[in-house]
Amino acid sequence: MEKFTRNQRVAAITKILIENPDKVVNLNTFTELFNAAKSTISEDIVIVRDVLNKLSVGKIETISGAAGGVKYICGVSREESKAFARDLCLILGERDRIIPGNFIYMTDIMYNPQFVHRAGVILASEFNNLKVDYVVTVETKGIPLAYEVAKMLGVQLIIVRRDNKVTEGTTVSINYVSGSNKRIQSMSLSRKSMKKGSRCIFIDDFMKAGGTALGIDNLLKEFESELLGIGVLVDDVTTERKLVRDYISVIQFKGINDDGSALLESSEIFK
Amino acid sequence: MEKFTRNQRVAAITKILIENPDKVVNLNTFTELFNAAKSTISEDIVIVRDVLNKLSVGKIETISGAAGGVKYICGVSREESKAFARDLCLILGERDRIIPGNFIYMTDIMYNPQFVHRAGVILASEFNNLKVDYVVTVETKGIPLAYEVAKMLGVQLIIVRRDNKVTEGTTVSINYVSGSNKRIQSMSLSRKSMKKGSRCIFIDDFMKAGGTALGIDNLLKEFESELLGIGVLVDDVTTERKLVRDYISVIQFKGINDDGSALLESSEIFK
Repeated sequence: MEKFTRNQRVAAITKILIENPDKVVNLNTFTELFNAAKSTISEDIVIVRDVLNKLSVGKIETISGAAGGVKYICGVSREESKAFARDLCLILGERDRIIPGNFIYMTDIMYNPQFVHRAGVILASEFNNLKVDYVVTVETKGIPLAYEVAKMLGVQLIIVRRDNKVTEGTTVSINYVSGSNKRIQSMSLSRKSMKKGSRCIFIDDFMKAGGTALGIDNLLKEFESELLGIGVLVDDVTTERKLVRDYISVIQFKGINDDGSALLESSEIFK
Repeated sequence: MEKFTRNQRVAAITKILIENPDKVVNLNTFTELFNAAKSTISEDIVIVRDVLNKLSVGKIETISGAAGGVKYICGVSREESKAFARDLCLILGERDRIIPGNFIYMTDIMYNPQFVHRAGVILASEFNNLKVDYVVTVETKGIPLAYEVAKMLGVQLIIVRRDNKVTEGTTVSINYVSGSNKRIQSMSLSRKSMKKGSRCIFIDDFMKAGGTALGIDNLLKEFESELLGIGVLVDDVTTERKLVRDYISVIQFKGINDDGSALLESSEIFK
C-alpha cells in the first residue's frame, strides 16, 4: 500500500473537495485512499479549512452523524467580487459591443469558462444559505452560468425550453408575456425533471423587465415548487418597471453613452 | 504580512490550479500571495505534481520563459473512466427511461453537474493534445457537457443556435440534413464568435447518424476553421451508416431489450 505525506494528502483532499462543492465527502473516502487514520485525516482537513478561511475563498463544513463528513462551500471575498464587477463593466463597455437594436454583445463572456466560473461563484455565494434543490434557467445564453451556480450549490440544473422536444417525455408548457416587448412567448419543462415541493432559484444572463423570471415563477407553481431567489449577471435598469422584486445582479446597464458604448456600473452590493 | 505554512500553501496552490485548467499561472502570483521565495513555491508545486501523478488525476506542466509558469492539465485514470462508463450504462438502462418514440430520457444526467464534470474530464482528456481553440456544441442538451470540456481545455465554448437571435449581431446560417430523419434543419453562428483559422472540437450528448456533426463541419468551413475531433456521451450504434468517421463516445446505445429497457455498453476505449 502506498504511503502519502501530509503535504500530498492535503493537496489531494483539496482537489477532491473543490471538485465536489456542497457535497458531503465521508472521511472514510480519505482514510481508504490514503491508508491513514481518521485522526490524521481530520488534521489534514483542518489545514485546508484554515487556508480557505485565511484567503476568504470558501469554507469547509463538518457534518456529523453516520452520513456525515466534510464539504466545501464556495466563497469569494468582497474585494474579489468587486474587482470582478469592475472588470466586467470595462469589458462590456467596449464600444464595438453595441449591436443594432442597442443590445450589448456579451455572448463571448457568457461562454468563457473563466468568467463564468468567477460569476458563478459570486452568485452561488449569495444563495448558499437557501438550501435550494434546483437551479433553473431558460435556454440558451444563461446556461453555462446557471450550470456553474448549480455545480457550486451541489444541485441539479434545470433548463426550461422555448419549444417542445420529443426527447423530454411529457412536458408542461405555459405562455407568458415578455415584459419588455409585450410579446407572448411560451416555455416548457419536462414533467420528469422536478420533484413536487422543490426550492428553486432562477439564474439568467440579462434582465430587462423580468417577464421571463415571472414566467418561471408561474411555471414552477405548476410543479408545486417555489422560486426563492433570482440572480442575473446584468440588470437593465433603463427598464424601470420590473415585474419581479427580489433579485440580485452583478452589474447594471444604464443606457448608451454619447460615444456609443454601454454605460455600466457595479450593482449596489458589489460596489 | 501573513505567513503561510507549506501545507497551507500546497492546499491553496492546488485550489488555484484546479480551478484554472490549462491556464498558465505565473509563479509570481504565488510568491506574492504567500510572500514566499520562488524556490519555495517551486518545491510546493513539486508536491502537488507528485500526488496528482500518484493518483492519476491529471498533471502539472511547467512552461518556461517570460510568460511561463505552471498549469494543471486534467486527467483521469483508465479505471475511473471505465467505472464511469459502467455506472452510466446502469443508470441509463433503467426501464422507466424509455419514452415514446424509443428515446432514452437522459436530460437529468446531462444537467447533473457531478455526472457532467466526470464526463467532461474523460472527454477533455482525449483531446488534451490537439491544441484546440474552441469547443463547439449545438443547443441545448449538450451545453453543460461541452462547457465542462471547454473549461478543462482552458478555451472558449461556442454554442451554435437553431434560430437567429437579435442579440448576436451578424450571423452565418447553414442548412443541413439531419442524418436520421432526413429533415432539413438550419443552424447559425454569430460572425463575432470565432476567429478565422481556428482549431475546434464538437461535443454533444447523443449521436445518431452524425448529421449535426457534419453540419458543424460545414459551418466551420464558413469560418475558415477546422473540425479536429468529435466527442459524444452516447453513440446510437443502431444507426449503422454514420455521416462522420473519427469520433469518440463514452457509451453505446444498442437498441431496446425485450423488457423495454435500453441496451447499453461501454464504448471500446472504456471497456
